[in-house]
Amino acid sequence: MASSTLSLSDLVPTSTSSIPNPKTIPATPSSVTTNPTLRSTSEPSTEPQTRKLKSSTQLTRWSRARAIRSGRKLERPVHRTTQTIEMKPPVSMDEGDATLTLPVIGNGREDDVEVAGGKSVYMVSDGTGWTVEHSVNAALGQFEHCLVDRVCPVNTHLFSGIVDMEPLMEIIKQAAKEGALLAYTLADPSMAESAKQACKLWGVSSTDILGPITEAIATHLGVSPSGLPRWAPERTYSLDEEYFQRIEAIEFTIKQDDGALPKNLHQADIILAGVSRTGKTPLSIYLAQKGYKVANVPIVMGVKLPKTLFEVDPEKVFGLTINHVVLQTIRRARAKSLGFGEDVKSNYSEMDNVKEELDFAGRVFAQNPVWPVIEVTGKAIEETAAIVLRLYHDRKNRCSMPRISKRY
Amino acid sequence: MASSTLSLSDLVPTSTSSIPNPKTIPATPSSVTTNPTLRSTSEPSTEPQTRKLKSSTQLTRWSRARAIRSGRKLERPVHRTTQTIEMKPPVSMDEGDATLTLPVIGNGREDDVEVAGGKSVYMVSDGTGWTVEHSVNAALGQFEHCLVDRVCPVNTHLFSGIVDMEPLMEIIKQAAKEGALLAYTLADPSMAESAKQACKLWGVSSTDILGPITEAIATHLGVSPSGLPRWAPERTYSLDEEYFQRIEAIEFTIKQDDGALPKNLHQADIILAGVSRTGKTPLSIYLAQKGYKVANVPIVMGVKLPKTLFEVDPEKVFGLTINHVVLQTIRRARAKSLGFGEDVKSNYSEMDNVKEELDFAGRVFAQNPVWPVIEVTGKAIEETAAIVLRLYHDRKNRCSMPRISKRY
Repeated sequence: MASSTLSLSDLVPTSTSSIPNPKTIPATPSSVTTNPTLRSTSEPSTEPQTRKLKSSTQLTRWSRARAIRSGRKLERPVHRTTQTIEMKPPVSMDEGDATLTLPVIGNGREDDVEVAGGKSVYMVSDGTGWTVEHSVNAALGQFEHCLVDRVCPVNTHLFSGIVDMEPLMEIIKQAAKEGALLAYTLADPSMAESAKQACKLWGVSSTDILGPITEAIATHLGVSPSGLPRWAPERTYSLDEEYFQRIEAIEFTIKQDDGALPKNLHQADIILAGVSRTGKTPLSIYLAQKGYKVANVPIVMGVKLPKTLFEVDPEKVFGLTINHVVLQTIRRARAKSLGFGEDVKSNYSEMDNVKEELDFAGRVFAQNPVWPVIEVTGKAIEETAAIVLRLYHDRKNRCSMPRISKRY
Repeated sequence: MASSTLSLSDLVPTSTSSIPNPKTIPATPSSVTTNPTLRSTSEPSTEPQTRKLKSSTQLTRWSRARAIRSGRKLERPVHRTTQTIEMKPPVSMDEGDATLTLPVIGNGREDDVEVAGGKSVYMVSDGTGWTVEHSVNAALGQFEHCLVDRVCPVNTHLFSGIVDMEPLMEIIKQAAKEGALLAYTLADPSMAESAKQACKLWGVSSTDILGPITEAIATHLGVSPSGLPRWAPERTYSLDEEYFQRIEAIEFTIKQDDGALPKNLHQADIILAGVSRTGKTPLSIYLAQKGYKVANVPIVMGVKLPKTLFEVDPEKVFGLTINHVVLQTIRRARAKSLGFGEDVKSNYSEMDNVKEELDFAGRVFAQNPVWPVIEVTGKAIEETAAIVLRLYHDRKNRCSMPRISKRY
């Protein structure tokens, strides 16, 4: 199952073999495949002139949305007045609109999907779409039993930066045609209400992802929400202390990766120690994105650990360990991806060596009893990150009801 | 405002000055400050023995939750039978329970909060808590107008890994005492229902973050949700192609940072080019977390760009640009954080040089008209990432209804 989490799992060796992605024949009109020169500066879009498309009216409808998608800010009123929306029922699937075909040209990543078969979930956002994507992904986790091995495949389609009624209605029409479920995050109350009404009219099941929590917060604070989408020109961000802290944390963490610059370990907030392929690097990066300066130190059989590791505050050091069978499988896959043949007997992935190295790490951990040791087998990077941060905050706060607190 | 987004903003220079974090006097009992030896292996927890606490009964209540927090998996039935929950109304604030005090010892990060004043939002999750945190953060974006300058401060408190009734009830009791709003993601239907009922009984406003979308997906697929929390032993992850792709993407991106290894540019999915402090590094890392191999190439006045940049598929190159006034402010702050005094006139942050370098970058972009140029001024890293990925998928898919699709 394609999950958005990074996991160190109880995998079976066969699952690591390369499965070729199904490539399908492009179904978009050939004229669309000419390469448009996309310029995303603040200058007026010249796309309608340079693009050669059969259905230019469709493109015109999208030009405003495209301008916003490309980063240009458009002047528009904060709260729109009542708009007349054409709410004719959409045409049925067999009347198919050529301009609304689904993407079929893959690139070997998540958009490389064959959409035939499976249920669809449309995700619409007036912002980046990461909130609706995150929520739908988490909810899909409750259906792993049916998604596994694509028994009951689900296709998600994220439409972000949707701040205008027209593209919103087009998407809902298409959702109706395709029998898709619609999940949305739309800050503008008139957009959210229109989405709800259009879905009702056209028989599309829909869920407002942020509406309920926004309303609850509004009641709690006694303040009305702004109703402004993330990219609205009226919403401004202030570049604060936290901004610099996060940027610094990411830059620090990159520089410290894989045991680099051990002299800087004292500057780290969190230090991760573990043998190769226990997920130190992705975990470090995940934590850095949350604003923590992370250093990771590889434990390699027979290689002396940096002296500074034992000089720093031991409360900030975390050991990572993993089941030896799983580790061997991961290392074999790693060796394969590095181009070693399966017949190559390497110290790196041979079971005796894997066990020996884990034992060595275990002895290092035993000698440093203050370091918590986290078992990462079968855990997603996000999970291990949650454990690290809980322990970290627990130790810092020394309170009996562990939590991570933040002030807005 | 402390936002969880990384933004390159229309900042005013004064906002970059260092604001000392308010430190408060530790209010936890002194016996709690003794350093417990936290061991998070799969062995049985020895905490109750090694920890010396005044209120050991409270700790016992938490020991199971703590074991889970520390990563140990506990055996428990998939669907619990009806449980008797003690639902006495919680004591009022002035009867304060010493074991339920809020964290007051800061560490200079988000837990360094002074909780006096402001409204509280409690976030409870049976998993990592990142979904509820993400959603609450996004919803709080709708209240920037009142959060700015902490006119109406909000304190969020994340309680993750809550898979048992007792800690759940303790948290809701505390929320009632504090007059907090409760937002939760609880997969187990009996836990979710109990949370709802307890909140109703104790007068706590509450919102189920994932319930509605999970139900909608269940109806859509005609399949019941598993009701299993993220860390339940019954839920297993499969380490798939995507896992290796993401790990590889992160490792590749780190190695390619700041123009390193230009010979590898052809291996990148996405190449970012821009002058220093346009956010190339954090943007690269953000995109890498989503599974894209990203290389970033700095554009420096008078430094020749790598030949390979002009040899790769120009469709994967993205230029980043920024307003010169904002860039100068960011660079000045950067210079300051690097330890230069304010009186030091540096080429790096002097306006003439900043303008000249941006002009130089502009000429490079003009010579490569296929590269989209993204204006990052005032944009959060997440926003710029959304724009890059939309353009990227748009170009790959060549479909007129731009989307990012994924198959589960």
